[in-house]
Amino acid sequence: MKQIRLYTLTLFQILICVLLTQISIQSSYAHENERLYQFPDIPGYKTLLCDFHMHTVFSDGDVWPTIRVHEALKEGLDAISITDHLEYQPHEKDIAHPDRNRSYQIALDAAQEHDLIIINGAEITRDMPPGHANAIFLKDANKLIKEDVFDVFREAKRQGAFIFWNHPHWIAHKPDGIAELMEMHHQLINDGLLDGIEIVNDVTYSNEAMQIALDQNLTIMGNSDIHGLVDWSYKLYKGGHRPLTLVFAEDKSEESIKEGLESGRTAVWFNESVIGKSEFLIPLIEHSLLVKRSYTMKSYTGESSVQAVEIENKSSTDYILENLSDFSLHSHADVFTIKTHGTETVGVMTLKKMPEFELCFKVLNAVVAPNTHPEINLKIHVNDD
Amino acid sequence: MKQIRLYTLTLFQILICVLLTQISIQSSYAHENERLYQFPDIPGYKTLLCDFHMHTVFSDGDVWPTIRVHEALKEGLDAISITDHLEYQPHEKDIAHPDRNRSYQIALDAAQEHDLIIINGAEITRDMPPGHANAIFLKDANKLIKEDVFDVFREAKRQGAFIFWNHPHWIAHKPDGIAELMEMHHQLINDGLLDGIEIVNDVTYSNEAMQIALDQNLTIMGNSDIHGLVDWSYKLYKGGHRPLTLVFAEDKSEESIKEGLESGRTAVWFNESVIGKSEFLIPLIEHSLLVKRSYTMKSYTGESSVQAVEIENKSSTDYILENLSDFSLHSHADVFTIKTHGTETVGVMTLKKMPEFELCFKVLNAVVAPNTHPEINLKIHVNDD
Amino acid sequence: MKQIRLYTLTLFQILICVLLTQISIQSSYAHENERLYQFPDIPGYKTLLCDFHMHTVFSDGDVWPTIRVHEALKEGLDAISITDHLEYQPHEKDIAHPDRNRSYQIALDAAQEHDLIIINGAEITRDMPPGHANAIFLKDANKLIKEDVFDVFREAKRQGAFIFWNHPHWIAHKPDGIAELMEMHHQLINDGLLDGIEIVNDVTYSNEAMQIALDQNLTIMGNSDIHGLVDWSYKLYKGGHRPLTLVFAEDKSEESIKEGLESGRTAVWFNESVIGKSEFLIPLIEHSLLVKRSYTMKSYTGESSVQAVEIENKSSTDYILENLSDFSLHSHADVFTIKTHGTETVGVMTLKKMPEFELCFKVLNAVVAPNTHPEINLKIHVNDD
Amino acid sequence: MKQIRLYTLTLFQILICVLLTQISIQSSYAHENERLYQFPDIPGYKTLLCDFHMHTVFSDGDVWPTIRVHEALKEGLDAISITDHLEYQPHEKDIAHPDRNRSYQIALDAAQEHDLIIINGAEITRDMPPGHANAIFLKDANKLIKEDVFDVFREAKRQGAFIFWNHPHWIAHKPDGIAELMEMHHQLINDGLLDGIEIVNDVTYSNEAMQIALDQNLTIMGNSDIHGLVDWSYKLYKGGHRPLTLVFAEDKSEESIKEGLESGRTAVWFNESVIGKSEFLIPLIEHSLLVKRSYTMKSYTGESSVQAVEIENKSSTDYILENLSDFSLHSHADVFTIKTHGTETVGVMTLKKMPEFELCFKVLNAVVAPNTHPEINLKIHVNDD
Repeated sequence: MKQIRLYTLTLFQILICVLLTQISIQSSYAHENERLYQFPDIPGYKTLLCDFHMHTVFSDGDVWPTIRVHEALKEGLDAISITDHLEYQPHEKDIAHPDRNRSYQIALDAAQEHDLIIINGAEITRDMPPGHANAIFLKDANKLIKEDVFDVFREAKRQGAFIFWNHPHWIAHKPDGIAELMEMHHQLINDGLLDGIEIVNDVTYSNEAMQIALDQNLTIMGNSDIHGLVDWSYKLYKGGHRPLTLVFAEDKSEESIKEGLESGRTAVWFNESVIGKSEFLIPLIEHSLLVKRSYTMKSYTGESSVQAVEIENKSSTDYILENLSDFSLHSHADVFTIKTHGTETVGVMTLKKMPEFELCFKVLNAVVAPNTHPEINLKIHVNDD
Repeated sequence: MKQIRLYTLTLFQILICVLLTQISIQSSYAHENERLYQFPDIPGYKTLLCDFHMHTVFSDGDVWPTIRVHEALKEGLDAISITDHLEYQPHEKDIAHPDRNRSYQIALDAAQEHDLIIINGAEITRDMPPGHANAIFLKDANKLIKEDVFDVFREAKRQGAFIFWNHPHWIAHKPDGIAELMEMHHQLINDGLLDGIEIVNDVTYSNEAMQIALDQNLTIMGNSDIHGLVDWSYKLYKGGHRPLTLVFAEDKSEESIKEGLESGRTAVWFNESVIGKSEFLIPLIEHSLLVKRSYTMKSYTGESSVQAVEIENKSSTDYILENLSDFSLHSHADVFTIKTHGTETVGVMTLKKMPEFELCFKVLNAVVAPNTHPEINLKIHVNDD
Repeated sequence: MKQIRLYTLTLFQILICVLLTQISIQSSYAHENERLYQFPDIPGYKTLLCDFHMHTVFSDGDVWPTIRVHEALKEGLDAISITDHLEYQPHEKDIAHPDRNRSYQIALDAAQEHDLIIINGAEITRDMPPGHANAIFLKDANKLIKEDVFDVFREAKRQGAFIFWNHPHWIAHKPDGIAELMEMHHQLINDGLLDGIEIVNDVTYSNEAMQIALDQNLTIMGNSDIHGLVDWSYKLYKGGHRPLTLVFAEDKSEESIKEGLESGRTAVWFNESVIGKSEFLIPLIEHSLLVKRSYTMKSYTGESSVQAVEIENKSSTDYILENLSDFSLHSHADVFTIKTHGTETVGVMTLKKMPEFELCFKVLNAVVAPNTHPEINLKIHVNDD
Repeated sequence: MKQIRLYTLTLFQILICVLLTQISIQSSYAHENERLYQFPDIPGYKTLLCDFHMHTVFSDGDVWPTIRVHEALKEGLDAISITDHLEYQPHEKDIAHPDRNRSYQIALDAAQEHDLIIINGAEITRDMPPGHANAIFLKDANKLIKEDVFDVFREAKRQGAFIFWNHPHWIAHKPDGIAELMEMHHQLINDGLLDGIEIVNDVTYSNEAMQIALDQNLTIMGNSDIHGLVDWSYKLYKGGHRPLTLVFAEDKSEESIKEGLESGRTAVWFNESVIGKSEFLIPLIEHSLLVKRSYTMKSYTGESSVQAVEIENKSSTDYILENLSDFSLHSHADVFTIKTHGTETVGVMTLKKMPEFELCFKVLNAVVAPNTHPEINLKIHVNDD
């Protein structure tokens, strides 16, 4: 009795994030026309929210591809790629010899009237080396079913694919969890057959994979690898989120995403961290933090030399800040968090009245290299009118 | 990288309903070991929460059967039946000639270590008449693929099935939405081939179907007919729920559920209503409402003759009560709601001190026949110690 | 160190009510510039939210008058009157011989820069008869300290006061809780010294007081009589509210409120009920319920004759509706609730296509006389474009 | 009509904190018998939650002392001291020549049947130097009304008081916000007349005051200095809290609190920070973090050498941890937060199987000296049964 669902045309309901000083309200499910997650664009680029690794019943996932589309729409993602395993088909008893482009096609149909980009992808599923890799922006995934793994990578490249190494730290392949380049990976990189690397997969992060990305100039990726339901795995209804690759793209199009990935313009949002190269993370964070108001504090005895600075976090991740400024704070210890969509009023003891000054923070939950955190600067203009 | 999910073994998280006077907190998702929905047992029977109508990718649903199992586990249901269409197979391009017992078998495997009963079922999918019908407790659904609809019903019965008419008010079959018995339905009933009728399907209810159930002594059924995700369709994270058939069974077993259905011992929980025969609804409601405390109200001038009665609603549905007692209330107008898991303190003006008295309410959101609401009685024992 | 509070200038924070189909989110605390509670204006009148009965440390309350002002501002009330007891001064050991206008003056100062009307009032505090009465719109409360109660009432009237009988059903004065006119009350009414009557006080309601109001043409009042904190007593943070007198006034001014009260244009919002004369309740409810959209339901077989009507409840109270229309519903039993700020999509079986029709409901939680509920009509214009 | 409140005897309602992996639910208001805030005891001492600085109508506060008691009860505090200004009496027009012990006595009465300790206190209110100071554990506050400030301090000491310097960084006294010892303070310290110092007052923190506390061996204090309502100022309904002085006391008694304060056994909970000497902070945090489970992670290829460690934060503050262990993490970057009442599962790459190992973290939101954070160690015992 499916048609009866006409009733409930308001299928995606309104959600409103209540922004409150020092308190973040964890909410759920955005309006269809509103992004659930908020990250600012950076100068020159749009910040697109992408997940390039997920499964459906066409390999070992639990859902029809339509569910992947609706999950992404509810979360307000910009692009997804369904990457069913080419060589691992545990449902083959029920779904025999499937066309390896089928999940892509079904998803594409489902997304037709929505502003969600569906990218044809597949997971090349081999033992280590090289382990698993995703090829995305494929033209025909079926042509990747070949014996020799180098042939597969080359066929993907022939189709113009962007290829990245999946979860190099996966304990099924590396029982110590340490991502490590083997001979074959070097060869793939040297042959131009490997463009990126997952430093985040599902609920895991790898410092070593991050170092490999930086050393080998591979694009930094972080994806969900979802098999079940995103809502359940990441508890969206409690404010959770799946890991995402943020692509800094010239515009919202498949071509621009590909160009962004090939140019290494990405960051990863994982849990309460953002991870990426400092050239992208620093503007991302600086544009996430809005100085809403700055004024000299007054008391009944008159004006002080303490400046109040209201800083709003307009992004969907908390930021943990360590004060590196010359000035001591009147309101916080040196380390404090500005929660997602929260505002902190920071008292700055400038010792004398200053119409302008700079605040400098190390952002402790932002990672630009293993155990390395970027510094940001906020320019403050005091307005006492 | 599915194994990494070992990490998050606490896959289903705790949920707690905060019970508050006059306020219900709509919550979400129960702990794996706790029922999300609460309805009391009634004298002689356990109250089992069942959904006997749902779909998977094996007909026109969007999920692998495992998801149906996990949905039911999260909600704490006692039994489900996956009832994929026998004759409507829109995914046949991908899932060719499927075994009609497959979704049952997959679900059965997934539920193996859980206390969830999986019942083999199928939807007999014909134009009107007779429209759609579910046969549950099947032994082999494949044997129901026959040309003649009476042969199908007879085969189901041969297997010991319980058969019910689905959504007789469906506008695709009855554009006026009025459930109505046709010649063929009378014949099926007379031949003992039709045992129940859905008065509730998804977000619809039919007064006329309810009347047919009462007139023909058919078992009253209400099911979700879910194709997508229960979480999304019924907004569980906002306190919503799918419609359920409550079966009053001797114990929690497949046999007892069958016996309960065959004996017509059911009620339907739909939205904020409970619908069923008064012999089951009245004890269900009376056991839902706990008189926690009753005492004579005092003021600074001494004792009054107003009795305070604290009534807690221990069930998952609100109850809208109309006061039919001889006594006027001191705290409420004649109609008021005791919200799910809420407590109302009702002031009763008994005019003189009474150690015992009865409160009588019509329960306006309980339906025992079209536009007819049951009356309940609560015995009050005043305790002023 | 009070001045430091300059920091937190955003003293009253934003609150947003999330409106969801069938689900009401109980929220808390409005933005300073936004009303926490929503009731529509009715034709010809603004609907003003007022509380005319409350206490401070200047009689037996627990707070300085400023708190009463800030409570009202947070809740977005239009007018309050602090009505400290004239004759009951339990804090006199600490606050000796207080000026009976003091709490008014302090509140007036505190409200100075806000759009909240402060009305000078006092509670005439006598044993029964006549019990307690509030005189509001006073010029000088001190002049009401007189021996003879009739002198007090006459002095109040001389000052132009509006006088109402407080909690006639109070068990300290009437142990049976039954509001009843005594000789002295008749006399006060006949002498034009009693204008209104509380049918609701704090958490109590009196059917008998309601009948007296109707019989004697007294203005219907409902107030909090708050002594402690409104937040705590009524659990605002859980979606609760204090009882309020809704005054239907020509504009938002002290004069118009007085004129509205004198003309008997009020209703009471108490718990989840609205109580008042049908001439005000019916337009209040009809303007609370917005028909957002109406369309003919379609199925895969084409158009049906079932009309879907989306009704949004734009007010802060739930409405419990009983269908009195000629049409049976396809979506609900005859009794259902449209929760505050929720939307219900009602399927109406009109049997044939109708471009226009009327829905008629009895509103079971609205009270126009003891145990009597008003009927409302909603005009439906079907739009299938 | 105050007595009618007998109705709502469940004046303080249940609140339940839902503890969820990685997500903290901000809740509100504990059951009367349950502490709203949770901090573990440390070896040898109970951890008592205290606020030693607050005001009522008896100086410049907005509430009767009873409200202070009920606030503390709702929050589950162990002890409070009302410290009305001795020399600043802005309500003297209404509350003339008040007994300086009155607010204490009223609060004591109100707390009579509760397990809340009320300590007699007063704020010595002078210009700088010495500024404001609180004397608590007074016997008769009236005797502190003296001209010479040293006489006042000496009288307080004669009564056995514990005296601390209030908000030395207050901009009304120090426009640059920098806490600084002046000659008179040195003298007071030398004369044994000053025992403690507020490093936190309301929404302010002072690094310099913290340094003074450490240098001069003054007891570290943090208090609310509340004038209005705690609920409003600290948004308890959104999960906020007032600053508190945690006293590590031998038992819950006035004497033990005094002994604990005199021995300098305190810490301050302020916003999302804990501040104090490392000898108390380290056990406090180590006992806040419960290692619930530790096991070797497995994949389909067998056992790995990655250890999963589930760490639950049983306290009411978040902890921001920086990994200082030799081991890299498989699940988190080096800095992450374990939210209040949340659990994080940390993957530790020990490289080989280890039945026991230690995790070492710097706790970035814990402060043991200006810009200095303590290190904690968690012993891990792997259990793979």
